[in-house]
Amino acid sequence: MSAFNTLVQHFKTISHFSHLSAICGWDQASMMPNGGAQARSEAMAELSVHIHSLMTKPQLEEWFASAASESLNHQQISTLREMKRQWRQANVLPESLVQAKSLAGSKCEHAWRTQRKENDWVGFEKNWAEVVKLSQEEAAIRADATGLTPYDAMLDIYEPGTTTQSLDVVFNDVKSWLPDLIDAAIEKQKSEQIIMPNGHYATETQKALGLDVMKLLQFDFNHGRLDESVHPFCGGVPSDVRITTRYSEEEFVQSLMGIVHETGHARYEQGLPKSLAGNPVGEARSMGIHESQSLFFEMQVGRNENFIHHLAGLAATHFKDSDKHVLEVENMKKLYTRVKRDFIRVDADELTYPSHVILRYEIERDLMNGKIKHTDLPELWDTKMQAYIGLSTKDNYRNGCMQDIHWTDGSFGYFPSYTLGAMYAAQFMAAMKKTVDVDSVIRSGDLTPIFTWLSDNIWSKGSLFTTDELVTQATGETLNAEFFKKHLTSRYLG
Amino acid sequence: MSAFNTLVQHFKTISHFSHLSAICGWDQASMMPNGGAQARSEAMAELSVHIHSLMTKPQLEEWFASAASESLNHQQISTLREMKRQWRQANVLPESLVQAKSLAGSKCEHAWRTQRKENDWVGFEKNWAEVVKLSQEEAAIRADATGLTPYDAMLDIYEPGTTTQSLDVVFNDVKSWLPDLIDAAIEKQKSEQIIMPNGHYATETQKALGLDVMKLLQFDFNHGRLDESVHPFCGGVPSDVRITTRYSEEEFVQSLMGIVHETGHARYEQGLPKSLAGNPVGEARSMGIHESQSLFFEMQVGRNENFIHHLAGLAATHFKDSDKHVLEVENMKKLYTRVKRDFIRVDADELTYPSHVILRYEIERDLMNGKIKHTDLPELWDTKMQAYIGLSTKDNYRNGCMQDIHWTDGSFGYFPSYTLGAMYAAQFMAAMKKTVDVDSVIRSGDLTPIFTWLSDNIWSKGSLFTTDELVTQATGETLNAEFFKKHLTSRYLG
Repeated sequence: MSAFNTLVQHFKTISHFSHLSAICGWDQASMMPNGGAQARSEAMAELSVHIHSLMTKPQLEEWFASAASESLNHQQISTLREMKRQWRQANVLPESLVQAKSLAGSKCEHAWRTQRKENDWVGFEKNWAEVVKLSQEEAAIRADATGLTPYDAMLDIYEPGTTTQSLDVVFNDVKSWLPDLIDAAIEKQKSEQIIMPNGHYATETQKALGLDVMKLLQFDFNHGRLDESVHPFCGGVPSDVRITTRYSEEEFVQSLMGIVHETGHARYEQGLPKSLAGNPVGEARSMGIHESQSLFFEMQVGRNENFIHHLAGLAATHFKDSDKHVLEVENMKKLYTRVKRDFIRVDADELTYPSHVILRYEIERDLMNGKIKHTDLPELWDTKMQAYIGLSTKDNYRNGCMQDIHWTDGSFGYFPSYTLGAMYAAQFMAAMKKTVDVDSVIRSGDLTPIFTWLSDNIWSKGSLFTTDELVTQATGETLNAEFFKKHLTSRYLG
Repeated sequence: MSAFNTLVQHFKTISHFSHLSAICGWDQASMMPNGGAQARSEAMAELSVHIHSLMTKPQLEEWFASAASESLNHQQISTLREMKRQWRQANVLPESLVQAKSLAGSKCEHAWRTQRKENDWVGFEKNWAEVVKLSQEEAAIRADATGLTPYDAMLDIYEPGTTTQSLDVVFNDVKSWLPDLIDAAIEKQKSEQIIMPNGHYATETQKALGLDVMKLLQFDFNHGRLDESVHPFCGGVPSDVRITTRYSEEEFVQSLMGIVHETGHARYEQGLPKSLAGNPVGEARSMGIHESQSLFFEMQVGRNENFIHHLAGLAATHFKDSDKHVLEVENMKKLYTRVKRDFIRVDADELTYPSHVILRYEIERDLMNGKIKHTDLPELWDTKMQAYIGLSTKDNYRNGCMQDIHWTDGSFGYFPSYTLGAMYAAQFMAAMKKTVDVDSVIRSGDLTPIFTWLSDNIWSKGSLFTTDELVTQATGETLNAEFFKKHLTSRYLG
């Protein structure tokens, strides 16, 4: 067997174990009773160790060397590149650092759950110092191995090919117009009257409504399910995608759009190329592209006026006894586009969200590159919140620099993906509109042309191309914040 | 580390992978959409191969040899015995035979699903010939390795320590009185009037009722769940036991008692010794003892008149709009003790069930020991059905010798477990009654003393003792069919 084929077979084996990990992970979050946690986490840890041992199998180096000199077609070259990428990621760090960071991260994250509630920056800072130090070591090693700057080497884990240089360009662009846009939108919405959901929205009814909306979005129920979990996510495997949501019986708005968002992730997974299943090249391109699909569903389709019509109609069918004024199209539109300056990223609206992300990006970038110290965090956060969102977080760690879980375990480099996703989604929509009459299609209730475009341009490509290649093929250019600006301006000031 | 501890650690690793296999297996049967089947079965096959490779790791032989000369206490000796037993089972057969049997079994079973419907013995016989031949080879190799007869060596997989010699004694005993008892019971029930369930029993309501009954049976919901599957089973792991049922909306009787049955299996698993978790010695003793717990719940507790009172009361609470006469205690009792001569084992009542099993036992015993040919099956089946149950299956393969799945893939030696379980359950109940006022306890609705007895005598013992030791400690003697006879006589003629 050629070295290339040996590699493909080895990664197929790894994918089988990852499959089991994904299903058991979903089970853990959505099905497992509490008492099962201890034994499950031990079993999952054993599986991780096994997957890691497969990923660091000594022969791989030789196979990669041999495969490089074999005659490969374009698809095989991409396949080799993606296998090698995952292999490098798994092998670049010394075991001792991985373990030390994992320990420090678990400790910091665990304590953070209490410290955040108690607004205890001093306590948090003590644990976090170690996480930052080890993450900086990690970034240095990754930088060495890739020839990138430390922060870019961390970014590369989630967004291969994306660099500080390119992010600075697009994020500075956003920063140049977003604050004014937020001001204008808030001013415009000042006089609006909104009727808030208020009443009993039974979980079972919300679930039935969610399933109807998933049908409208052509979720493939032969290859996936909807369940519940504390933190909504999209998990499972492409042949069997598990999305989750959580229900509050006091309102249905958040859960419903959450389902739309996760369905976007799910359809990307369901639409990945089947012929490449079980290989890294058949996986989703990046976190940012994944988020572009969920946000395409949530922001580009889900908040489209014509889609809100469907949502309102379906909601009225299900919530027969609830206040009809809540469910009127105009009210639903307002509910889904309300702009508000607030402290918390995860609760932020479409318009203020990028500011939260850019703030984090600038801080983690400078932290990994050694330009700032971890103790500078609270002051930097306060300054940037005032500049970008107009709110001070002085002494308010809980709702300021201690609000997110990401940094507690050292996941530096992830935050940009959220806003990259929103920008890619806007750019994809602009490109799609050249050939698809999106508004009519949504109005018709048969959204097939939209999904065909996404499938042809994004889903079916897996990781065959780099992000820049993928986006250029789909839209004619690489990431351009202009589309995002146009989209936001049109929606919030149009 | 001592060889003994090395072994314990290795089996702990194996148990982690078995954990994942159990959860993914449960998911496959109760959650997975159809489209996920192909990728899942590939992932599960990979996991099986991995578990097998751990179980056949070459160093194990040396570790077992060294551990045998280490100074071990009683518990460690039992632990070593059980680890060795599983190791032997996994290593005794040559890979080529395992694969050949697996292939022939899959082929035969797959074709059987159609052939059974078509009453096609001729077609079935062609595939089955190979399964029988390979199973006979397997039995011969196992016999060689254990010094047992071929059939006893197959029995040993499911019922270690149980032999043809002992089974012949108890089953011949049963055969000497059961046919008359069946006649008498049917005669006695002739004049009874039963009101059959008939109406709409909503799945959701049945589920709520089932959960209430599980609470009465003190199922630990912090360590388990109830779900649905086509074929009900008890799966998962001791810290997280997954039982399933299936609902027919036309009646609730079968599903409800099915839940009681699976809860018996579940409480055994939940009650296994936590300190021995992850080791073979901490697992259930045998298939027969497992079945003794499910049948203890189903037959000894579940069909106890005082328990039927609870069932009827709970059913009346849940099925508010259904025919009240169906749910009256006297009618429920009749529904749950109706005796009927019939062809199908899985639908058989408590009284005729052993005849179905003994018939199969005698045939598989003689088949594995080479006393009969596989082509003799239909005639033998017909003769024995006439003798034991009074029905002819001549030319009726579908409802005769082709009705069960077990032999299609060569699982010879399993059938006795069902009736062993029923007999052990009766014997345990007789022993329990010496110290527990079972009827009053059940009447009171707090069944704790019953579960304490089972926990003390069965559940908490895991596989620390042989079946004979376990049963003797619990009841003062080894298996004795007399208790079963008394139980059946009292229930059906009392």
